[in-house]
Amino acid sequence: MPNTTYAIKPIGFVQSELTDHESAPRQGNEGAPDAWVHLDAAFTEGVENIETGQVIILITWFHKARRDVLKLHPRSEKHRPLTGVFSTRSPNRPNPLGLHRVAVMEIESNRIRVKPLEAIHGTPVVDIKPVLPQTNDA
Amino acid sequence: MPNTTYAIKPIGFVQSELTDHESAPRQGNEGAPDAWVHLDAAFTEGVENIETGQVIILITWFHKARRDVLKLHPRSEKHRPLTGVFSTRSPNRPNPLGLHRVAVMEIESNRIRVKPLEAIHGTPVVDIKPVLPQTNDA
Repeated sequence: MPNTTYAIKPIGFVQSELTDHESAPRQGNEGAPDAWVHLDAAFTEGVENIETGQVIILITWFHKARRDVLKLHPRSEKHRPLTGVFSTRSPNRPNPLGLHRVAVMEIESNRIRVKPLEAIHGTPVVDIKPVLPQTNDA
Repeated sequence: MPNTTYAIKPIGFVQSELTDHESAPRQGNEGAPDAWVHLDAAFTEGVENIETGQVIILITWFHKARRDVLKLHPRSEKHRPLTGVFSTRSPNRPNPLGLHRVAVMEIESNRIRVKPLEAIHGTPVVDIKPVLPQTNDA
């Protein structure tokens, strides 16, 4: 297979009170706050039909992550054995995509308030998807 | 925010009997077959600890998709009203990421057999994540 690289382009950014990794929880359900997804003007048309109360999947790009990690101690806990990165949710991974299941709290013209979201302020958002009703999952 | 683009690089590819979009189901749970995820040699270490029977999330890159679509008729059914792309699972979207919840059937050194998978043969795979036990979702 060819050794192709593709260009991924943010559709928006996270606006959050979380500004550094030390204060950010590991997962959304570990006490993460509400946050806004601020959409780039070019993409606002694409969020039509998203509604308050809906559950959506955000895909983010952890732009500060390391991309050369293939094995790691889960949750940076040294007593945990080295584990293949694709068996973990570590942000440090070859393609640092974050997957976040969040509830929609509020919608403005170009931003969506969601909860809970553990991504820090400024994290690029690259996709939004509905949860499929048939499976209730991603 | 800066108008940055990031480089996303396949970690592997889908090997499937599905070779064109016409024969591919819309979603995995609509009759999609088993398929292999063939990992690039550089990333095989990262899949250590994935086990047969486990449920994982594959993220693919629909390399043949259109990226300029912001509104569409869901499932290409014209009677359905035009809908913002981020309220749909259409492969045609600004960043054509595919999200697939699959079961691991078999593991070889550099490939993983999964089911069900609606992505066609040759589709790049860009990430693999475990399903979080706390939430059983993505």
